[in-house]
Amino acid sequence: MNADQLLLGPAHAMAAAVRAGTVTAEALVQASLARIERTDTAVNAFTDLTAARALAAAQGIDARLKAGDEATRKLPLLGVPYAVKNLFDVEGLTTLAGSKIERGQPAARQDGPLVQRMDAMGAVLVGALNMDEYAYGFTTENSHEGPTRNPHDLSRVAGGSSGGSGAAVAAGQVPITLGSDTNGSIRVPSSLCGVFGLKPTYGRLPRNGSYPFVASLDHLGPFGRSALDVALAYDAMQGHDGADPACVRRAVEPTAPTITQSLSGLRIAVLGGYFHDNAGPDAQAAVARVAQALGGLHAVELPEVARARAAAFVISNAEGATLHLPDLRLRPGDFEPLSRDRFLAGALLPAAWVLQAQRVRRWFALRAAELLRDVDVLIAPATPVVAPPIGSEWIEVGGQRLPARPSLGLLTQPLSCIGLPVCAAPVWGCHPRMPIGVQIIAAPWREDHALRVAHALEQAGVVQAPVATLP
Amino acid sequence: MNADQLLLGPAHAMAAAVRAGTVTAEALVQASLARIERTDTAVNAFTDLTAARALAAAQGIDARLKAGDEATRKLPLLGVPYAVKNLFDVEGLTTLAGSKIERGQPAARQDGPLVQRMDAMGAVLVGALNMDEYAYGFTTENSHEGPTRNPHDLSRVAGGSSGGSGAAVAAGQVPITLGSDTNGSIRVPSSLCGVFGLKPTYGRLPRNGSYPFVASLDHLGPFGRSALDVALAYDAMQGHDGADPACVRRAVEPTAPTITQSLSGLRIAVLGGYFHDNAGPDAQAAVARVAQALGGLHAVELPEVARARAAAFVISNAEGATLHLPDLRLRPGDFEPLSRDRFLAGALLPAAWVLQAQRVRRWFALRAAELLRDVDVLIAPATPVVAPPIGSEWIEVGGQRLPARPSLGLLTQPLSCIGLPVCAAPVWGCHPRMPIGVQIIAAPWREDHALRVAHALEQAGVVQAPVATLP
Repeated sequence: MNADQLLLGPAHAMAAAVRAGTVTAEALVQASLARIERTDTAVNAFTDLTAARALAAAQGIDARLKAGDEATRKLPLLGVPYAVKNLFDVEGLTTLAGSKIERGQPAARQDGPLVQRMDAMGAVLVGALNMDEYAYGFTTENSHEGPTRNPHDLSRVAGGSSGGSGAAVAAGQVPITLGSDTNGSIRVPSSLCGVFGLKPTYGRLPRNGSYPFVASLDHLGPFGRSALDVALAYDAMQGHDGADPACVRRAVEPTAPTITQSLSGLRIAVLGGYFHDNAGPDAQAAVARVAQALGGLHAVELPEVARARAAAFVISNAEGATLHLPDLRLRPGDFEPLSRDRFLAGALLPAAWVLQAQRVRRWFALRAAELLRDVDVLIAPATPVVAPPIGSEWIEVGGQRLPARPSLGLLTQPLSCIGLPVCAAPVWGCHPRMPIGVQIIAAPWREDHALRVAHALEQAGVVQAPVATLP
Repeated sequence: MNADQLLLGPAHAMAAAVRAGTVTAEALVQASLARIERTDTAVNAFTDLTAARALAAAQGIDARLKAGDEATRKLPLLGVPYAVKNLFDVEGLTTLAGSKIERGQPAARQDGPLVQRMDAMGAVLVGALNMDEYAYGFTTENSHEGPTRNPHDLSRVAGGSSGGSGAAVAAGQVPITLGSDTNGSIRVPSSLCGVFGLKPTYGRLPRNGSYPFVASLDHLGPFGRSALDVALAYDAMQGHDGADPACVRRAVEPTAPTITQSLSGLRIAVLGGYFHDNAGPDAQAAVARVAQALGGLHAVELPEVARARAAAFVISNAEGATLHLPDLRLRPGDFEPLSRDRFLAGALLPAAWVLQAQRVRRWFALRAAELLRDVDVLIAPATPVVAPPIGSEWIEVGGQRLPARPSLGLLTQPLSCIGLPVCAAPVWGCHPRMPIGVQIIAAPWREDHALRVAHALEQAGVVQAPVATLP
């Protein structure tokens, strides 16, 4: 296979080909940059390219391989092009976080730790990706940069806030991207773009060197077109960093080596109740198909999920607004029009609301912990509907007309709110043309469980992430 | 010694006498009730007596001892009278939490877990104690019940909010009491009344069955006239209870058996900076005396202590007001006049202030954790001044005139804010007539370190808690 063909396959196959010498890292980077150039006018996933850096890195890898460097040869992501949501610090780029306001800031002086770790594992950074401003949205309709378009239907949104990250992978521009998930910002674009995405346990991956949104809810994580690619990227990024005070000191627990283990012994159930009632027919069909493939699952419920979601909403609104308070006071006109009013509202919230929301969140986490004593993995839909058309103001779910942009997070918010690890995995054929994702949810620190189930479903052909057909 | 004499000594001696058969539990309860009757018109520590319950419990103990019941004989608090701040649930009493508003509530249907545990260890509950309304104060100038008076000078405050708990022990009415500490409410009355008090690590003792104030800051703990008595009561109350979600699941770690261990190996320092600058001359002298007795200590500092205190203030204000929001809206006139305006202000706080305060608190906890890697125990003053006269509006500290009631917590708030265990221990002779306390601060979960240092200082005669001379 040549580099162009490899680019449309999984990352682990690219690394294997570079390792075997059948393709160079430079050729892969060239193929990636060429495909981005060819497709990104339509998709609009990238806001910055780091072509010179990428070529230099790839040439360095190739030179070290040529020199017989065994350590380089063994790197799990050897020569794999990747890109990051533009809230990750990349040396020499201004960390925009999707904003106009940050354009005035100096460039980052070093890569954030996750970028450093990806590079150390052989991956090659090719650019930075579009997102909802300050991560406050679920559609990546960014008014400053233009919307990112869904590679499977360019008239539809890619989801957000990590829309560029989802779209770049679905478009075959790169096999792996990094994004962030505060209320669903990895899982929503994964669902709408038909790719895999992992939101790890809260506190697992360090967030220093990235632009925050809601410190008590922010997670970073990878996207890919296979569960194994996601696991490899996640494993590459694991490890404590004291500069993020929320990052928990734990040993690295690699998931890729365990991903092929049997599911026997894993207790899996479907999350019913709220997660069924707030899913449209396509989403319900996706969960039913996964449940059937796993041998027919019983349904379990969490109590008061709507309140947990409301708590996530209030906490995000208040913490986000607090973070941006100086700019909201001085230059509200420079904010994204689609989220400005929500930010301003957050600045006016009374303390009592936030404190009650924090109480609800703690209470709900205890209920989930109780449920996860009896079950290892929970299946739920990732979004209520498939990707809506760009500009949609409304979606319909369960006979109710709901505001489109916030409601795409209906099913993801209650879970990130309590930090559970979730792998989003894409199901096809429930909607005539578009994918829709399921959430594979595990107990805290058991990313391996979620990834193992995602991999088994992928092997069975129940979930899959084909590259979009683009002009 | 007869029961009246024993009552003025330590609890452990009372239990030993009951165990040896030289006094009955009933005689001790009778002595306690008689002293309360004789002295409480002046002191006003008690708001309720549970005489019938106490006599029945004491008679039950005596009967079991007479029947040769070995399990009863071994109880560490055998026949020891005690009393609780009236925010603890006591079966048959309405849990007032110092308020007028709660008077309309039904009586508690069962004892809270700490009362149950004290009773299970042989202690005998004789009544409930005065406090600042809803624990929001440092002076126990309760307008509904009248102020609790300092047994060492009846014209002065007892401190608060657990003023009744401090005063009852200082007055020799009971050897052990329970109180709560959100911002200093155990340590301030301990300092002003000249008794020992322990605020355990946040999350150590369960708080269900007590009236809350600020869930994220509330601690329960014991008062006594010796470090050993405090340790015995604390040990009796240890143990997880799932009904308090903040209560951490840890093994019981008894401190009384280790209290006599040598201090060699313990790294002890004085907390300087803020804790020196915000202490009046008596408080500074108390710390100097303790430091000298411990062999001359070097000073260490925590950064940004004033901000940590401000964070505790804002969090308490907002969480407290949120708890009482319905009553603040409907019947503000029924609140304590001395704290009503602060509660109303708390109801108006913007969310951003609280979120910033929570950030400061997390940051400060990390700084303290760093410091406590190099030091095991820190010494600081407990209050800036000795007990001020009842009705004082101002105190003077470091040449500055400060509002008396909130400023009594100047030195305690920054430490409870981050949950560190602290034993307050009383020093005499720095002021002509009144005691003043020092805080003996340890790393989280190391109550044993604080109690061991308190015990050593008591053995050396540097700290002590004599019974007040009362008319």
